[in-house]
Amino acid sequence: MNDTGAQKSPSDSKYTDMANAIRALSMDAVQRANSGHPGMPMGMADVATVLFSKFLKFDPAKPDWPDRDRFVLSAGHGSMLLYSLLYLTGYKDMTLEEVKNFRQLGAKTAGHPEYGHADGVETTTGPLGQGLATAVGMALAEKMQASRFNGIVDHFTYVIAGDGCLMEGISHEAISFAGHFNLNKLIVLWDDNDISIDGKTELAVSDNQIKRFEAMGWDAQSVDGHDPVAIEKAIARARETNKPSLIACKTTIGFGSPNKAGTSGVHGAPLGDDEIALVRKELNWPYEPFVIPEKILDQWRTVGTKGARHSSEWERNLDALGSEAKAAFERSLNCSLPAEFEEAIAAYKKRLSEEAPGWATRKSSQEALKVVNGIVENTVGGSADLTGSNLTMTEQTVPVTPTDFSGRYVHYGVREFGMGAIMNGLALHKGFIPYGGTFMVFTDYARPAMRLSALMEQRVIYVMTHDSIGLGEDGPTHQPVEHLASLRAMPNINVFRPADAVETAECWELSLKARKTPSVLSLSRQGTPLLRLDHTAENLSAKGAYELSSSAHDAKVTLLATGTEVAIAMDAQKVLEAEGIGTRVVSVPCWELFDAQSPDYREETLGPGTIKIAIEAGCSLGWHKYIGTDGVFIGIDSFGASAPAEELYKHFGITSEAVVAAAKEKL
Amino acid sequence: MNDTGAQKSPSDSKYTDMANAIRALSMDAVQRANSGHPGMPMGMADVATVLFSKFLKFDPAKPDWPDRDRFVLSAGHGSMLLYSLLYLTGYKDMTLEEVKNFRQLGAKTAGHPEYGHADGVETTTGPLGQGLATAVGMALAEKMQASRFNGIVDHFTYVIAGDGCLMEGISHEAISFAGHFNLNKLIVLWDDNDISIDGKTELAVSDNQIKRFEAMGWDAQSVDGHDPVAIEKAIARARETNKPSLIACKTTIGFGSPNKAGTSGVHGAPLGDDEIALVRKELNWPYEPFVIPEKILDQWRTVGTKGARHSSEWERNLDALGSEAKAAFERSLNCSLPAEFEEAIAAYKKRLSEEAPGWATRKSSQEALKVVNGIVENTVGGSADLTGSNLTMTEQTVPVTPTDFSGRYVHYGVREFGMGAIMNGLALHKGFIPYGGTFMVFTDYARPAMRLSALMEQRVIYVMTHDSIGLGEDGPTHQPVEHLASLRAMPNINVFRPADAVETAECWELSLKARKTPSVLSLSRQGTPLLRLDHTAENLSAKGAYELSSSAHDAKVTLLATGTEVAIAMDAQKVLEAEGIGTRVVSVPCWELFDAQSPDYREETLGPGTIKIAIEAGCSLGWHKYIGTDGVFIGIDSFGASAPAEELYKHFGITSEAVVAAAKEKL
Repeated sequence: MNDTGAQKSPSDSKYTDMANAIRALSMDAVQRANSGHPGMPMGMADVATVLFSKFLKFDPAKPDWPDRDRFVLSAGHGSMLLYSLLYLTGYKDMTLEEVKNFRQLGAKTAGHPEYGHADGVETTTGPLGQGLATAVGMALAEKMQASRFNGIVDHFTYVIAGDGCLMEGISHEAISFAGHFNLNKLIVLWDDNDISIDGKTELAVSDNQIKRFEAMGWDAQSVDGHDPVAIEKAIARARETNKPSLIACKTTIGFGSPNKAGTSGVHGAPLGDDEIALVRKELNWPYEPFVIPEKILDQWRTVGTKGARHSSEWERNLDALGSEAKAAFERSLNCSLPAEFEEAIAAYKKRLSEEAPGWATRKSSQEALKVVNGIVENTVGGSADLTGSNLTMTEQTVPVTPTDFSGRYVHYGVREFGMGAIMNGLALHKGFIPYGGTFMVFTDYARPAMRLSALMEQRVIYVMTHDSIGLGEDGPTHQPVEHLASLRAMPNINVFRPADAVETAECWELSLKARKTPSVLSLSRQGTPLLRLDHTAENLSAKGAYELSSSAHDAKVTLLATGTEVAIAMDAQKVLEAEGIGTRVVSVPCWELFDAQSPDYREETLGPGTIKIAIEAGCSLGWHKYIGTDGVFIGIDSFGASAPAEELYKHFGITSEAVVAAAKEKL
Repeated sequence: MNDTGAQKSPSDSKYTDMANAIRALSMDAVQRANSGHPGMPMGMADVATVLFSKFLKFDPAKPDWPDRDRFVLSAGHGSMLLYSLLYLTGYKDMTLEEVKNFRQLGAKTAGHPEYGHADGVETTTGPLGQGLATAVGMALAEKMQASRFNGIVDHFTYVIAGDGCLMEGISHEAISFAGHFNLNKLIVLWDDNDISIDGKTELAVSDNQIKRFEAMGWDAQSVDGHDPVAIEKAIARARETNKPSLIACKTTIGFGSPNKAGTSGVHGAPLGDDEIALVRKELNWPYEPFVIPEKILDQWRTVGTKGARHSSEWERNLDALGSEAKAAFERSLNCSLPAEFEEAIAAYKKRLSEEAPGWATRKSSQEALKVVNGIVENTVGGSADLTGSNLTMTEQTVPVTPTDFSGRYVHYGVREFGMGAIMNGLALHKGFIPYGGTFMVFTDYARPAMRLSALMEQRVIYVMTHDSIGLGEDGPTHQPVEHLASLRAMPNINVFRPADAVETAECWELSLKARKTPSVLSLSRQGTPLLRLDHTAENLSAKGAYELSSSAHDAKVTLLATGTEVAIAMDAQKVLEAEGIGTRVVSVPCWELFDAQSPDYREETLGPGTIKIAIEAGCSLGWHKYIGTDGVFIGIDSFGASAPAEELYKHFGITSEAVVAAAKEKL
């Protein structure tokens, strides 16, 4: 149980000083950087002071202590609020120098909080609404972990969200999900300041947020965000309710600024030296920039050092469980793959090569998952309401429900973006390896969360099925065309498009091993033959591209293909070889991994001096890197159409006949 | 005013027959296609019958009649509901043959309703939630047009939405916007059937939708969706309220199917011949597949022919306004550019070439907009709460408010996706040319709507500022890197990245002239010099790429660049030329337009035989099409960082020095 600390009245001057320290650091750092957002930290300083000094269970000396409360600044532009708190409470790496270097190259104090830059930053925020949704994932992780490790997981997840967060659609997916699953240890403090960038929020929004959250099954309160007693009471109540909680904190943006408080002018620009001088007077804060008087700093540091009690008590509890349980918890946190993992995948691949199933790769994915989920205890599956299509469920993955979190499957609902952000939260919390499915075309809906998976270097696996016009009749709204390219454009995300059941197993292995890189598995709706008939324990997909089938002659043609189009390449090869035209087939399951190989390997694989033809049922963008300006691309640069899959392949000319014709024309 | 038609009790057998005709056609068409979604049309047949026969103002003989009510099937997978209605009410192009060809190549009856395929399809739907949001745009357009043309614009917008639509985040943005702007002629019929693909909706959601919509300022009712009297009463009330309206229609999915009704099994798969036989019995519908008895077809056709009265009455009203007002209305609908448009742009460009401002291209965009908005009366600006950053407002664009729709600017709020979908609705409704702004990085949030702009061939203009690491301190969450490439991957959308104020004016001209293609204007935060110092009336950007600066020597090097990096190329050229290394600079403001030029022009522009160096502060993906495998790309294939812009350009090596060094290394 959390200790709320000494229950002194917080309305005394000590409390005011502590909040003003946040205000001063924030306005000074923004001024020095000549860039940033002072309004929010100044407005929410009182709320944050109450939260951190009275409630938050954290230990600056052990920032990664597993059972800490999570604090997420969803309104990430107010980053100086967080940096101020980290510095004041005594996080070792958040020095005054770092605060002074706010928004400078290499500083831990990036413009928006960046996960991995500074201790105490639980997630990257800035893209609005996503902090809230990621926090929902953390709160879900807490419930799931608590159900597995009774008594040693019991923490809150607190969020500060702004008007922008609550206007974004993702907020709906997040609060609806949290309400449904009744994540009662999630507490959202809404900076209810009536101001957005364009001016008063009444320009664009008039939601009754209290009623809105209640409609989603939340407890909702409203308080004066500058009244510490009221704030304390509200948070105390929120911790006791059996529902997730919203606290609308009525605040004045830029509190303390005589001329700019309560206006959008204080949102995203430095106050200026003159106004800062006036704030110092107004707040009775006569100290130089970046100077926090020792007494006030001590008060804050005491808040920080108190945390050691929490963490050491927790460690004693963990030890008391006994060494076996402790080891199990630590193994679970670490999410390492068991020793037998590689062997099991290799054995499974051997079986596939013998049995040669012609599954759709989504089916191959499910079969691989049966192996994975049987061995890797931390995987948590799910789908955005396409379980039977994505084939993301296996017998091991019993669904989580609002009353039982011991399961390993999440019905995310029709919430692709929410699913991505919640998976980020599951991964960041630690203890789980989340994977989740939807149709490939709806990566567009989930894309902002996928970008954060990549930026935060999280092992989140996106199982994206129905990955081309091969999905057939649902038509162009459901047929991805540009999606492979648009995902390959994104830094630090591996886009896998396996050709058959063996490659699918290999790509799953690679996704699970990529601890600092999210993965997309692009999988077919339609069946495709097994091509890897000769078993090898080596993971050939690990090189990103490899010669799948060599030529019996001098190779004149290299066919590069991915996914279901590798079978088309193999068909074309047969015809060309029969006519004496030496043809190799190179399967390219992952560009990112291929690009990381040595130049020699890459050149050799691409077949120097051969005619290069790439075949992929997607757009051409990017392929010229491999096929050169002389190469031929066979794919689709327009939107698809509604018809049976086979007809579409013919209609759009993605056939072995077209490949053969193109090769002959080039010879 | 709408006529609700003869007010016979709809619970008689005539009504039941009419609804069953929809059910039969839907299940038969899905069965024949062996693909599709029978559950929703069968569940919502009663609601649709009441709506179309009692309320909807439409004329199958004049599908594009401007003041028709708009009907949007947001749950687009239930497309057979719409196709059935179009056939039954007598839309000429929706023949029985088309219905039988459901989901076949070239049919008007695509798997999901596709705008432009069949008359009466008001928007493409299928990507969930977007139909609802697009309908909000249509309802906004109605209000705006009505405020401009008093008395001749007065129609409702009806939406059928499913559980999926209401789970998607976009639904929040849409209903919050509609509630704020009090779009009281928007009526949403929610197919409240408790079923989604994974099973019962209770697996993933427990929102109180009535309370949720009320929290957003809507009127909300709940009715038995199989009780025509109740439905009629509810719709009648919804039309009278002074708020947008939700009607939760409690229905049974797959109504009429003895074994599958009320289950997810009927959602997205054919019923099968046996079950269909049972449905025929259950519904007392003994007719052969696709056979609608004459009497019932007549009843439906009578509903359709009644529409002629509405449209001709409306035409009389229009005529009564007088020829001048009528011409103004038709001009407004048509949204053609005035005759003086080209000349004005040319004159403006001339002034720019003389004055040579070093504006950021976002500022250049605003200056161009001052010219555009002064001449083109139909533009409607807006921003997702970044007006002062996107610079999308001009003196001509007074904001629309909940009580005055005569303005030309929309404060969309922090709703990027919603903005995109609402702009689609504005364009589809006709009468407006919408443009809207956010940061380039947040195209990720708006992307699903942008895809529909492209697929539907709508002139929607996305003003995307802060288009590179040049935005500086906000850091990687706000710095687009992969976005140019990911948008270039999308079919039918022009991605413009102008280099200076002149090119920005040209790109605006091209965006406005592209009637069937949406545009993205990728614009800088930071200033950049004017490079087009020699005035030419010709729109050079129209070719997509052109030689901006030739070499004084034999050209050995071609520098290809876009946007703010063209100035870097020009600097590098100076250095190289001074050293006698012949260097050309090619500005590439639009790949899509360049790719549409003749092969000769393209080859000549790219500089055959020269060393090719591309410079763009984004990822390399796609550039090898122009620079070949031997070319050099100078850009950024990782995420950005938080620091002042100039430092970032140095840090990531996007400098003229790097260009010069690369050229020399290659020589």
